[in-house]
Amino acid sequence: MSEPSRGRQFRPLPVPNVKVSGFWGDRQEAVCDSTAETLLDRCVEAGMLDQIDVRKPSPGIVIPRHSGLVSTQMFWDSDLGKSIETIAYSLYRKPNPKLEARVDEIVDMYERLQAPDGYLNSWFQRIEPGRRWTNLRDTHELYCAGHLMEAAVAYYQATGKRKLLDIMCRYADHMIAVFGRRPGRLPGYCGHEEIELALVKLARVTGERKYLDLAKFFIDERGREPHFFTEEALRDGRDPEEFVFGTYEYNQSHMPVREQRKVVGHAVRAMYLYSGMADIATEYRDDTLTTALEALWRDLTDKQMYVTGGIGPAASNEGFTDYYDLPNESAYAETCASVGLVFWANRMLGRGPDRRYADVMEQALYNGALSGLSLDGRTFFYENPLESAGKHHRWKWHHCPCCPPNIARLVASIGAYMYGVADDEIAVHLYCESVAEATLGNGAKVKLAQETSYPWKGAIGIGVSLESPARFALSLRVPGWVKGASLTVNGEAIDLSAVTERGYARIERQWADGDRLQLHLPLAARAVWADPRVRQDAGRVAVLRGPLVYCAEAADNGPGLNSIVLTDGLEGARDKDLSGIPGAVAIEVPALRETAEGWGDGLYGESPPERREDRVVLVPYHLWDNRAPGEMLVWLRKENG
Amino acid sequence: MSEPSRGRQFRPLPVPNVKVSGFWGDRQEAVCDSTAETLLDRCVEAGMLDQIDVRKPSPGIVIPRHSGLVSTQMFWDSDLGKSIETIAYSLYRKPNPKLEARVDEIVDMYERLQAPDGYLNSWFQRIEPGRRWTNLRDTHELYCAGHLMEAAVAYYQATGKRKLLDIMCRYADHMIAVFGRRPGRLPGYCGHEEIELALVKLARVTGERKYLDLAKFFIDERGREPHFFTEEALRDGRDPEEFVFGTYEYNQSHMPVREQRKVVGHAVRAMYLYSGMADIATEYRDDTLTTALEALWRDLTDKQMYVTGGIGPAASNEGFTDYYDLPNESAYAETCASVGLVFWANRMLGRGPDRRYADVMEQALYNGALSGLSLDGRTFFYENPLESAGKHHRWKWHHCPCCPPNIARLVASIGAYMYGVADDEIAVHLYCESVAEATLGNGAKVKLAQETSYPWKGAIGIGVSLESPARFALSLRVPGWVKGASLTVNGEAIDLSAVTERGYARIERQWADGDRLQLHLPLAARAVWADPRVRQDAGRVAVLRGPLVYCAEAADNGPGLNSIVLTDGLEGARDKDLSGIPGAVAIEVPALRETAEGWGDGLYGESPPERREDRVVLVPYHLWDNRAPGEMLVWLRKENG
Repeated sequence: MSEPSRGRQFRPLPVPNVKVSGFWGDRQEAVCDSTAETLLDRCVEAGMLDQIDVRKPSPGIVIPRHSGLVSTQMFWDSDLGKSIETIAYSLYRKPNPKLEARVDEIVDMYERLQAPDGYLNSWFQRIEPGRRWTNLRDTHELYCAGHLMEAAVAYYQATGKRKLLDIMCRYADHMIAVFGRRPGRLPGYCGHEEIELALVKLARVTGERKYLDLAKFFIDERGREPHFFTEEALRDGRDPEEFVFGTYEYNQSHMPVREQRKVVGHAVRAMYLYSGMADIATEYRDDTLTTALEALWRDLTDKQMYVTGGIGPAASNEGFTDYYDLPNESAYAETCASVGLVFWANRMLGRGPDRRYADVMEQALYNGALSGLSLDGRTFFYENPLESAGKHHRWKWHHCPCCPPNIARLVASIGAYMYGVADDEIAVHLYCESVAEATLGNGAKVKLAQETSYPWKGAIGIGVSLESPARFALSLRVPGWVKGASLTVNGEAIDLSAVTERGYARIERQWADGDRLQLHLPLAARAVWADPRVRQDAGRVAVLRGPLVYCAEAADNGPGLNSIVLTDGLEGARDKDLSGIPGAVAIEVPALRETAEGWGDGLYGESPPERREDRVVLVPYHLWDNRAPGEMLVWLRKENG
Repeated sequence: MSEPSRGRQFRPLPVPNVKVSGFWGDRQEAVCDSTAETLLDRCVEAGMLDQIDVRKPSPGIVIPRHSGLVSTQMFWDSDLGKSIETIAYSLYRKPNPKLEARVDEIVDMYERLQAPDGYLNSWFQRIEPGRRWTNLRDTHELYCAGHLMEAAVAYYQATGKRKLLDIMCRYADHMIAVFGRRPGRLPGYCGHEEIELALVKLARVTGERKYLDLAKFFIDERGREPHFFTEEALRDGRDPEEFVFGTYEYNQSHMPVREQRKVVGHAVRAMYLYSGMADIATEYRDDTLTTALEALWRDLTDKQMYVTGGIGPAASNEGFTDYYDLPNESAYAETCASVGLVFWANRMLGRGPDRRYADVMEQALYNGALSGLSLDGRTFFYENPLESAGKHHRWKWHHCPCCPPNIARLVASIGAYMYGVADDEIAVHLYCESVAEATLGNGAKVKLAQETSYPWKGAIGIGVSLESPARFALSLRVPGWVKGASLTVNGEAIDLSAVTERGYARIERQWADGDRLQLHLPLAARAVWADPRVRQDAGRVAVLRGPLVYCAEAADNGPGLNSIVLTDGLEGARDKDLSGIPGAVAIEVPALRETAEGWGDGLYGESPPERREDRVVLVPYHLWDNRAPGEMLVWLRKENG
């Protein structure tokens, strides 16, 4: 084993550097052809442009404040930001002058809206002027800024247009003047984390370290005493005790972040915070943050994560509850939270390849996150339960429209999650038919072409193109769930056990143009049990194949999915085409089926229901509710251990 | 088999006619010694007396209107009414001059409050004068009246004092002047049923048929078109569409009651309506109501009732959802709803003994209702889930304090549920150590003394005392769950199959003083499966013994109750003393136990948890959370059918 990865710096490739086809290419097509424009249309229908356009009268309060202080209308800048970011990524893939023109118009509106001092927030400039920076705890002021920054970076990378980027740099410069520990500055941070990771993106694209420093300031201040949110409330004439979510755990400001070891509160907030912390840990090589992050990672993945990579079981706080409390039918498991987990996992790879992070990134990506977007890119899940009685369907929109653009921007930018690049190493975290262009820290320019129909099939060919031979390490993830993986380089078999470090097969050599790797990851269906402390999964198994969690749907199995009982292992399982979804693989498994036919009238009886032999068809969880509506079940009953 | 029971009239015995000891006697002691006074104390602490006492300034709106129109403060008369009713029953059992004096004072306050025209409602007289009879849909105006009527009847029967009874007769007379189909009258009814059954009680104690007629009017009007609640809203300047519960199913006014076949909406409302309908069906021999009630009964008990007799799974409407939707951990199953089911079942016996009704009455009474009251009578469940992760405990009080006095008045008046008396027949519906005095319609005066420690043991001796020999039928319920019941009369064995009609052993003969029956109901533990369409109970059994549903508690079994697996039948089960609760019977059953010990770190694994042999201790559901707090589980995992 090599040294611990601490101290190294791996950064993602810019989105335009990876041309994606295959599985993710199809999903990106749907985002380009449908979602990108849909998002903007829905934002316009909601009246968001009326709020930012200073040429129109202020719309006033359109959406009531549901908890006294907060209204989803306060976050409209973030919805526009994420939508612009999605459109930007879609433009990398498919030019769309009409859509680009619409974004340009919105950017012009923001330019007109921006205050002379750089401040920019449509709620506080148009609805509640005079209240800026008075309630960071509740009003998402910096959160909105963060999403506009991410949009600005993406739009600049997509189009080369700097206007929005310059606007957001001016705003960031204004923040640098407002926040700080010196007298007259605000020693504050946002109630909804986001600005931290956005400032890192802004710093990376502009090369300005001052934005990194501001991100680090927000992270360093969080949870310090005297507590900023308490002081702020008192200054603002509010009772600090009157906080609708009761505890500062809700926004992870209950203690300084470096002391945190338990994942608590609002799930999306937590993921965005940890993402920002991981970025700062990488950029500053700050292992006081890494120590906290590693403990938080174990806390989340060992005790609080659905098998789908869904997180945050409760609707009440949109977040975490007790260890091992993972209800399936009432799972909140917000799409945004799994998207956020992908963000965090990806950033944990900033200190070097480690399967622990990449496996969970893939798990959350293909299951809890991707389920949030319909195949056609037009409808969206907000909650992602693991069981449905048939009434849970994707929305056209949501009163809090955070999830649609979040999953859309993730899908549209998936190329950035596939690789990590350091001075002398490229790590392949995700597999998908694609071509990537990377420039290593040592200057080597490498082109990697993946040929694969992963995740449906496990054969992955990787072609290396180089202008001139170069020495570097190519690290390929061998997922933890694989049994019997194999690898050849230029036809020569590699002993994986000899070269695998932290779950990555690390091939360090002088690479030449035309070198070719062939990785095989067997994708046999496997049954998975939950820790017996998860009461909701007791006596049940989930079936997975590769990174995909499978589920039973009424569309294939009729109603009454809890009447299905698996009694043997999955030896009798076989792959099956999934009608209507080309290339997709379903799984058919022998099972027993309990029947209500001979049951009679009474609701309770002293004999068990009759059982007959049956075969159950399972489909990938992320594809559920794309055909006919109906019941769905991930955790299937399993008897005899 | 005799003729269908339709056309016959069985009425309960007045509460004072049954002296209860044994199982229910102990619970009544707790109500007399603790609950009765506790209820009144809590009503006073809540400020209810300030609202009814005209010598004090009006308290104004103390409790905010949580859904725009409704506040629990509007129901305070009902809380006082049910508390007075409970106290009245407690006075039958145990004189308590201090408590009686406190009630007298409240009655005096109501006397002073009553308007010259007879109207009486503390909210509309003291908080919102001028608004009376303007919003029957939401404001519980007649509901409050109903509970004060029930209190008046009980207090009169307990003390012989007529003052509250006279007050409520004046109020009922006022209603007769207000309601009706003639011009100038209101063709209305209450959004929360209750007045109907209360008027029947008032009619029975006063002998005034006009009160029955008014009850029948409210029932006949319900759900007719043009819809009263729609017309009323328009008259009141409200938009009828702005009904927070969305549908008139919520209060069972979606169609005329005689056309209703599906149990819908708010569970307590439904039970109170059906109770009133059953009373009117009995009093008027109105079988157009009976037909609807029988269909509603099947709908509820075959498709919508927990094994505990809990009903109404959802918190959102405090009521019914879909057929076979019976979630255990999130079960609302309000105490009041099971109490209401006892009321309804009892009234379905008005047309003659029928085990279908009495079995469910007993099931709801001993489980879903009784669980609402702690052994010491001091704390109360509002929701009665069938599974708890350990955070569900009885409250000292509740912001909507409907349940505490409801279960208390049921326990304190349980004698009235034990017997049904007709012209020439006495039916014994429930068994408990007790002495009852009944006068039959034919004039015979009968005293029945039950000697039994039921429900812990199944031997029931019944002694008959008569002033002079008399011919009548004595009908003893043989519960549907019994296997191998036996009966002797004066030592002579009776062939139960020959004399059993609708589940009652009907012994019709010339009875003489000193006659003695001995009934034996074997109480072996039995496993019960749910209809396989109840997805939440799939692969699970409930264990019952006699009428009692059993559950596992952490107090006996440690945490992780879903790691318990039953694999065989209950042949290995044995009764066991329940430490700390004299007389009570626990059950010990061999089981397998899954253990987290060898599980390791990951949340998901590819091997099942290890299992070891274990014995699980089950305790009566109604007794749970009376010892140490912790997990609870009714439906235990069961493998192999």
